[in-house]
Amino acid sequence: MIFRRIKSEGLAHLSYFIGSGGEAAVIDPRRDVDAYLDMARQSCMDIKYVLETHRNEDYVIGSRELEARTNCRILHGRRLPFKFGEGIGDGDRIRVGDLRIRALETPGHTPESLTYVLYDTGDVPLMAFTGDALFFGTTGRTDLWGTPEEAAGLLYDSIHKKIVPLGDQTILCPAHGAGSVCGTGFSDRDDGTIGGERLTNPDLRLDKEKFIAKKKAEPLERPPYFKQMESFNLNGLPVTGGPHPCRPMNVPQFREAISNGTLIDARMPPAFSAHMPGAYSIWLDGMATWPGWVVNYQSPIYLLLENEEDAAAATRYLYRLGFDNVKGYLCGGFQRWLNAGQDTEFLGLLVPDALAGMLAEGKVTVLDVRSDAEWRNGRIKEATHIYVGELEKRIAEVPKGKPVACICSTGLRASLASSILKKAGIKEVYNVLGGITAWKAKDYPLLYEKMLEK
Amino acid sequence: MIFRRIKSEGLAHLSYFIGSGGEAAVIDPRRDVDAYLDMARQSCMDIKYVLETHRNEDYVIGSRELEARTNCRILHGRRLPFKFGEGIGDGDRIRVGDLRIRALETPGHTPESLTYVLYDTGDVPLMAFTGDALFFGTTGRTDLWGTPEEAAGLLYDSIHKKIVPLGDQTILCPAHGAGSVCGTGFSDRDDGTIGGERLTNPDLRLDKEKFIAKKKAEPLERPPYFKQMESFNLNGLPVTGGPHPCRPMNVPQFREAISNGTLIDARMPPAFSAHMPGAYSIWLDGMATWPGWVVNYQSPIYLLLENEEDAAAATRYLYRLGFDNVKGYLCGGFQRWLNAGQDTEFLGLLVPDALAGMLAEGKVTVLDVRSDAEWRNGRIKEATHIYVGELEKRIAEVPKGKPVACICSTGLRASLASSILKKAGIKEVYNVLGGITAWKAKDYPLLYEKMLEK
Amino acid sequence: MIFRRIKSEGLAHLSYFIGSGGEAAVIDPRRDVDAYLDMARQSCMDIKYVLETHRNEDYVIGSRELEARTNCRILHGRRLPFKFGEGIGDGDRIRVGDLRIRALETPGHTPESLTYVLYDTGDVPLMAFTGDALFFGTTGRTDLWGTPEEAAGLLYDSIHKKIVPLGDQTILCPAHGAGSVCGTGFSDRDDGTIGGERLTNPDLRLDKEKFIAKKKAEPLERPPYFKQMESFNLNGLPVTGGPHPCRPMNVPQFREAISNGTLIDARMPPAFSAHMPGAYSIWLDGMATWPGWVVNYQSPIYLLLENEEDAAAATRYLYRLGFDNVKGYLCGGFQRWLNAGQDTEFLGLLVPDALAGMLAEGKVTVLDVRSDAEWRNGRIKEATHIYVGELEKRIAEVPKGKPVACICSTGLRASLASSILKKAGIKEVYNVLGGITAWKAKDYPLLYEKMLEK
Amino acid sequence: MIFRRIKSEGLAHLSYFIGSGGEAAVIDPRRDVDAYLDMARQSCMDIKYVLETHRNEDYVIGSRELEARTNCRILHGRRLPFKFGEGIGDGDRIRVGDLRIRALETPGHTPESLTYVLYDTGDVPLMAFTGDALFFGTTGRTDLWGTPEEAAGLLYDSIHKKIVPLGDQTILCPAHGAGSVCGTGFSDRDDGTIGGERLTNPDLRLDKEKFIAKKKAEPLERPPYFKQMESFNLNGLPVTGGPHPCRPMNVPQFREAISNGTLIDARMPPAFSAHMPGAYSIWLDGMATWPGWVVNYQSPIYLLLENEEDAAAATRYLYRLGFDNVKGYLCGGFQRWLNAGQDTEFLGLLVPDALAGMLAEGKVTVLDVRSDAEWRNGRIKEATHIYVGELEKRIAEVPKGKPVACICSTGLRASLASSILKKAGIKEVYNVLGGITAWKAKDYPLLYEKMLEK
Repeated sequence: MIFRRIKSEGLAHLSYFIGSGGEAAVIDPRRDVDAYLDMARQSCMDIKYVLETHRNEDYVIGSRELEARTNCRILHGRRLPFKFGEGIGDGDRIRVGDLRIRALETPGHTPESLTYVLYDTGDVPLMAFTGDALFFGTTGRTDLWGTPEEAAGLLYDSIHKKIVPLGDQTILCPAHGAGSVCGTGFSDRDDGTIGGERLTNPDLRLDKEKFIAKKKAEPLERPPYFKQMESFNLNGLPVTGGPHPCRPMNVPQFREAISNGTLIDARMPPAFSAHMPGAYSIWLDGMATWPGWVVNYQSPIYLLLENEEDAAAATRYLYRLGFDNVKGYLCGGFQRWLNAGQDTEFLGLLVPDALAGMLAEGKVTVLDVRSDAEWRNGRIKEATHIYVGELEKRIAEVPKGKPVACICSTGLRASLASSILKKAGIKEVYNVLGGITAWKAKDYPLLYEKMLEK
Repeated sequence: MIFRRIKSEGLAHLSYFIGSGGEAAVIDPRRDVDAYLDMARQSCMDIKYVLETHRNEDYVIGSRELEARTNCRILHGRRLPFKFGEGIGDGDRIRVGDLRIRALETPGHTPESLTYVLYDTGDVPLMAFTGDALFFGTTGRTDLWGTPEEAAGLLYDSIHKKIVPLGDQTILCPAHGAGSVCGTGFSDRDDGTIGGERLTNPDLRLDKEKFIAKKKAEPLERPPYFKQMESFNLNGLPVTGGPHPCRPMNVPQFREAISNGTLIDARMPPAFSAHMPGAYSIWLDGMATWPGWVVNYQSPIYLLLENEEDAAAATRYLYRLGFDNVKGYLCGGFQRWLNAGQDTEFLGLLVPDALAGMLAEGKVTVLDVRSDAEWRNGRIKEATHIYVGELEKRIAEVPKGKPVACICSTGLRASLASSILKKAGIKEVYNVLGGITAWKAKDYPLLYEKMLEK
Repeated sequence: MIFRRIKSEGLAHLSYFIGSGGEAAVIDPRRDVDAYLDMARQSCMDIKYVLETHRNEDYVIGSRELEARTNCRILHGRRLPFKFGEGIGDGDRIRVGDLRIRALETPGHTPESLTYVLYDTGDVPLMAFTGDALFFGTTGRTDLWGTPEEAAGLLYDSIHKKIVPLGDQTILCPAHGAGSVCGTGFSDRDDGTIGGERLTNPDLRLDKEKFIAKKKAEPLERPPYFKQMESFNLNGLPVTGGPHPCRPMNVPQFREAISNGTLIDARMPPAFSAHMPGAYSIWLDGMATWPGWVVNYQSPIYLLLENEEDAAAATRYLYRLGFDNVKGYLCGGFQRWLNAGQDTEFLGLLVPDALAGMLAEGKVTVLDVRSDAEWRNGRIKEATHIYVGELEKRIAEVPKGKPVACICSTGLRASLASSILKKAGIKEVYNVLGGITAWKAKDYPLLYEKMLEK
Repeated sequence: MIFRRIKSEGLAHLSYFIGSGGEAAVIDPRRDVDAYLDMARQSCMDIKYVLETHRNEDYVIGSRELEARTNCRILHGRRLPFKFGEGIGDGDRIRVGDLRIRALETPGHTPESLTYVLYDTGDVPLMAFTGDALFFGTTGRTDLWGTPEEAAGLLYDSIHKKIVPLGDQTILCPAHGAGSVCGTGFSDRDDGTIGGERLTNPDLRLDKEKFIAKKKAEPLERPPYFKQMESFNLNGLPVTGGPHPCRPMNVPQFREAISNGTLIDARMPPAFSAHMPGAYSIWLDGMATWPGWVVNYQSPIYLLLENEEDAAAATRYLYRLGFDNVKGYLCGGFQRWLNAGQDTEFLGLLVPDALAGMLAEGKVTVLDVRSDAEWRNGRIKEATHIYVGELEKRIAEVPKGKPVACICSTGLRASLASSILKKAGIKEVYNVLGGITAWKAKDYPLLYEKMLEK
C-alpha cells in the first residue's frame, strides 16, 4: 500500500494519494494535478477514483483535470447538484487494489460532506478521510450554509455518531492543517488519530449545546472568493491541463500592459519600499490566498518578481484559486524598471522602536490589519482595527490627518495593507517590519481582550 | 510540528525527522545524512538529538555523520557498551521545541532496545518509535542474541507491558517496513497505530508461550554482513562526510582494475546475457542489500552500469552497508567494452515455457535460490533449493551433470545466483526470467508445504 | 552579443541563437523550441526572427512553433512556395539589436538556400550561417533535387562566388556537424572559419568539373522520411506546443495496444537478447533518425524503455521527426512483462571470436548492414551487404539456409537489423556485439575496396 | 573533437575544455572545477593537461584542484617561479587525442604569458588561446609589472610577431570577455577570429609607439586583491575539493557570529533600505568581484540572502576569489531578524526626479562611485567622484555637511558605497536607484570629458 499526504502550503490544504495493486485513488486533489500523476507513474498505478469529501470553498478542486488525463471516476456527496462526477452516500463501497473504502455521510461543514473510511485487511478501520468535518485540534466551520444551529448540530452528530465510533486506532486524514481559513484552533501538526482527537480535541469535549454555541461564536473571516470557489467546484471549470506559462515582458510591454490589469509585486516587504505605482504587495507564499481577497477574476494579472524562477510558483498558486489570467511578468525584474527611469513610488518602513517613538509623540495612526482572533489576542493600545481582507471596501474608515502605520503579525499582510492604502491615494504610509511579533520581542506592551473586558 | 518518514528502499528501513520551534531530532538515521540536513535547512531547525532505538544490524547508522555536521547529541540504550553517544533508559526525557520525548526500555530484538514516546501537548502519547520491537503486522526477530527464549520472552513483555499500554491512539513508527530482512510477515504499509496492531497483528494475539514458540520457528536468513554492521554500529565508523564519488574509468584502466577487485554488474537480468567474466549480477536496487552477502569488505569495488547516472545511487547503497571502497565505474558502459573486443561471456535466458519443456525432457537442473519461507510457500516439484545468500559457500551442493537453471521470484536474485555459478566455473547456466511469478502466471504447477506434509 | 549553438545529437543538427539589445533571432530551429525560449527568457530578449537557411529534409523545423509562442517573423528563401513565413533574397537585410544580418542566395543543396551573414560593428563579416551549403570538411549533398550537374554546379558557384569571398576571418556556422545524413566526409568538430575551410576542405580544392564529378559519386543513403520532412517543412505542420506526454500503461493495456501499433524497444543490444515479439530494436539515441526509416507515420507508437525517465527523450526525438503519435510506454518496463508470463522471444548474441569460429565452420551467413561508404571502407570477406535502412524492403535478398549474423560498426544498427529479420519470421538470427569495431580490435582481417579493385 | 567555452559571469573569465579521442585539456580552469569534471565524465575523457596561459591575478586558478582529482599535468610559462606544475616555452608541443597544441611565448601582460595554438589535422591553426594578450576589441593590461614601456612593448611584439601571423582563420580564445577588470574597450562578444581582430581591433591599428602610449594612458583600477591572487596563483593554495558548504544559522547564532566577522547582505538595493547594522551591500552577482575590494582575507564571512538557494552561488563566487572562510547564513532570511526585533537600520532611496529636486535646492551631495572611465564619459555636474573600490580608504574625502546620495550606473555599486558610508558612521545616506542609466533615461543633463576640456 502506498499512502502520501500532499500539502499545499499557504492554503494548508491536505490531499491524499492511496494506492495498492496497480490502482490508486486521490482524495480532494488540488487543481494542479501533476504531483498525483507523478506518484501514479512512479508506482505504475492507474488512478481509478477521485474522492471528494465535500464541495471545497477555498481552492479549485482538481477532479476534472485528473479525469481528463486518466480514466478515473469522480465521486462526491449526493446532496448537492454537482454538474460532474457521481453522487454517493452512506455505505457505498469501492475497491482500490486490495484496499476497501466505505463512504459515510458526515454533513455539517457542508450539507453533502462525506467521510471516506479506508480498510486494508479485515474490518478494523485504518484511516478516515474526514474532509472539513474533524481536524486536528478543532472542527470544520459551520457558518457557510444554512443556520449555524443546523450546520453545527449536524456536524456534532456526524462526529459523535459516525466518526468517533470508527475507533481510536483510526488515522485521521482531514482536508486542512494549521494555517487554514477553514477553521480556527488547529493543532500544529498533520498527523494524528481519532483516538488522539477524542482525548485531546477541545471541541469533542463539549456537549451538543455548548458545541453549537462555540461554533456560532467563532471569529472567522469569509473571503469574497469563497462564493467563486463554491461555484467553480459545483459546476466545474473548463479543463486547462495545468497553469498557462506566464510570459516574460520587457519594460515598454509591461508598462503598457499593467495600465489595463492588476499588478502584483511578489517581493518581500523591505524591497517594496520602492515600487511601481498601483501594485499590490503580496509576498510569494501569500499568493496562495490573498489574491482571492483583492483581485478581480476578470482582470489580467501581471507579476513583478524578485526572481524569475518564482513565476512558476506564483502562477501555480493563482491557478489553485481559479485565476487563469496571469499574463506576464517583467523580465529582468525591478532593476530594469529603475534603469529605464520609470515611475517609482516609495513606502516608509518602521521597526518597533521607531513606531513607539512616533506613538509617544502622537504623530502616527496605527492600523492593525490582522484577523479578529489575533486582534482580540493582544493589540497595541492606540491601534485601529480593519482586517486586511476588508480594507479595500472599508477604506473610508481609515483615520485621516496623520501618517498611517500598518501592522500585522510580521509585516507581510501589513505590506499588502500598505499597498492598498497607497493605491487609494493615501500619501504617508508606513509598514511596521516584524509587526506585533517584533513588538512583543522588544517587550513593548500589548492590550489583551481580558484586560479590556475588565 | 514537522514529522517526516524517510524510507530507504531496498533495506525497507524507516527513519524519522521530527521538529518543532527551531529544534529537531532524527530517529535511526541512515548513514547518508543529507536528507535530514536538507529538512533541517528548509525548516530552519537545529538537529539537537539523534535517537537510536537499538544497535542496528542491517545498515550503518548515520549518527556520527550527523554529529560531525551539526551539534547534536546521540542517545541510545544503556545496556550495550557503545563507543560513542550517551546511554539512556526508562523514563529519561528530552525536549525538542514544544515536543517531549520519553524513553522506554523495550528489550527483545536486542538487549538495549528503546522505544521513544512522543508527546506534543498533554499526556496522551502521539507517536511511538519502536525500532525493531513492534512492526506493522509482525514483531522484531529474536534470533540474533542470547537464547531465543530469553529474547522472545523479553520482547513479549516489552510489547505487552510497555508499548501496547501507550494506547490505541498512538501512531506506530517502527524502524522497518515490508521487505526488510529484520522480520517476516510484514503488512504492506508504513502507516498505522498501536491500536491497529493490537487488533490485527497476529503476533499480538498469542500468549507468551505461543509467541516464543512462533518466534523460534521463524525462517529467517542471517546475512554474513550483520556481524560487520553490529561491530560498526557499536564502535562507530570513521566520519566520511558522505559517499566518496566513484571515478569514471576507461576500458584499459577498468580491465586492469577489476583483475584485483570485485566487479558488480548493475544492469538488469536480460542485459546480463552478455557480461564481463567474473562479474556479480546485482540489479541497481538490489545493491541495497546483496553486496552484504557476497562482497568482501576489504576488496575494491568496480561497477558496470546501464547508465552512468546510476553511479551515485549504487555508491550510496553500498555506503549504507559500510562499503567505502567503491573505486570506479566503466565510462561509456558495456558498449565500450564490446567495441574494444574485450572478453565477454554469455548467460542463457529462459522463460517458463522453455523451462517446462526442458524439464519434461529431463535436460535441466532447476536451482531455486529463494528464501526458506518462499520455498515452503510454493515450489517447482523437481527443484533443488539453495538460498542465493548461501550459494557461494554451498557451491559444492549444486547438482552436476546437467545444465542448471536458476530461479527466484522474478529473475533478479536468480541473475545473481547465475553469476555466482559462472564465477565458480559452471558452464551451462540459465536464468529463468520472470521466475516463479511468471511460472504461476502461466499456470504451471507448484508444490506447497502442506501438500508435502501429507 | 549572445551567441549559442544548439546541437541536436543523433541528427547532428546545429541551430543557433543570436541576440543583442533585447532582441534575438534563431537560425534553423528544431521543432522542440523550449531551448530557444529558455535562452530568450534568461537573457530578457524578444525573439524577433526565425531565419531558415533552407527547407530542411531531415527534421521538422520549429519555425511555426516559435511563431505561435512569440511574435517573431519567419524568413526563408523565396524560390520555393512555402505556405508560411516570408521569402527573402540577395541583399535583404535585418537588424537584431545592434547586429545586422544580410541574406545571400546560395542555391545548390536546395534551390532556395540562403546564407545569412552576421555583422556586429562595421563591415567585416563576423559569422556566416551557411545551412547545408558549406560544412566543416565537406559540402552539402546535391542529390535531392534537379539534376546532380545543376545542383552541384550551383553549389560550386555559391561557395566560391558568395561564401568564400566573405573572408577568412568569418566564423562558419553550418546546419550540420559530423554524424549527419546530409553529407559525407565531415570534420569531427563544430567550430571553424571560412578561412579554415578554404585552406583545408578537400571539396574547396576541386575545380568546378571535378567538384561536380565528386558530388555525383557520393555514396549517400536517401531515407524514406526525407520526402515527408520536405512536405512538412514546405507546408507547415500544425502547431502542437511541444511533444505530447506519452502515457504509462500497464501490461494488459500495453499488450492490447501494441497489437495495433508499432513497438520500439529502446534498450541496449545485450538486453534485446530477450524481447517482445514484433519489436523494433532502436537504442535511445538512435531514436533521433532510425524511426524515420522503419515506422509508418500513421501508426500509433509504443515504447519499451530501460528507464521510464527515457520516455521524454524518446518522445522528443520522435517529435523532431514529425512523429506525433507516441501513445504510451510500458510502466515498470520489461520486468513486468516477464513477471506476467507474457510472450517473449530471444535473439542470439555473438562476439568476434564466436563469429570467426562459426565462419570457419561455414555455419553462418554474415549480413553487413552498414552504409555503402562504410562497407567500401573495410568488410568481412564472407559478408553480404544490405543497408539497414533498406533491409525491410529488400528482405527477400537475405540469404537463406543458414543462421544470419547481423553486423554493423558496433552492434547498435545490427540490433535493429536483427529485429527486422525476426519480425520477418527469420528464426535463427544473431547480433554481433561490438561489430566491425570489435572485429578490428581483435585483429581479424578486413577486405578493403582497393584490395577488391585489384 | 569537443570544444567548450566556460564563462564565469561577474569575472567575465573564459576557460576552455577541449577533447579528442578519450583525452582532454583545460585551459585556465577556475577554482571550482566540477564543470570540467562533468564534461570529462560525460564524454568519457581523461583530463590529461591543464594549460595556464599566465599567472592570473583576478581569480584563483583551479589547476591544483583538477590535479588532485585527475591525473593531469599542469603546464605554464617558464619565466616565473611557480611552486607547482611544469614550465614550458616556445615551440613545446603536446597531444590531446588527435589534437596537437603548440606553445608560443607571448609576454606583455605578464612576463611568462603563453599562447597555446591548437591544430586538428594539418598545419593550419584552428584556435589560439591567447590568455590576456589579445582580447576581442582590446588588448591585455600592461600596468601590473615592470615598466609600462617594457610590458606594452613586449605585448606589441607578441601580438604582431606571434599571434597575428597565425592567420586570419584562427579562432581567438582569450581568457576574458566584456566586463573584465583585465582590460578596457572589450567588444561585446565572446566569439571571433584573429582575422576579425586584425581588421577591427583598434589596438592593432596602432604602431608600436602609439600602442605603448595608449596602454600607458588606460584608466584601470587595480583591486587590492590582485596581489593576493598573484601570490595564490604563483604558490598554489591548498586543495579543498570545492567550496565548503556554508551553514544555516538561527538568529541568536547569527547575531553572535557577525559581531566578530564580515557581514555581506546579498539582497538587491531596494531591499537594503532596511538592513542589519554593519552589513556590506553586495548583490549576488557582484559577489564575483566586490568582496575582493572590501573583505579581509582573514575574517570569517556571514551572508544574508534573499533566498537560501543563493548560498551555493555566493559561496562559489567567494571561493573563486580565494575566500575560504564563509561560515554561515541566516536561515529564514531577514524576515526572521525582523520578527526577533533585532537592530535594524535604514537607507534612503532616491530616483532621478527626487535627486534632481534635492540638487536644485542644494540639499544633497552627489557621490559618484563609478570607475574613472565611466566618470570621464558623462557625469552629473555637481557630483564628487570617489571610486567605490577606494571609498573605504578615502572615506575622509567624502564631503560633509549635507546628506550624501551615492550614484553609480544602476544603483548596485552605489548600494555597496552607501553601505560603506553607513558603516563609517555617516548618517544621512541615499542610494540613487537606477543610477546614471535612469538619470539619462529621464533626460537629465550630463557633463562629458570633452565639454570639460574645452
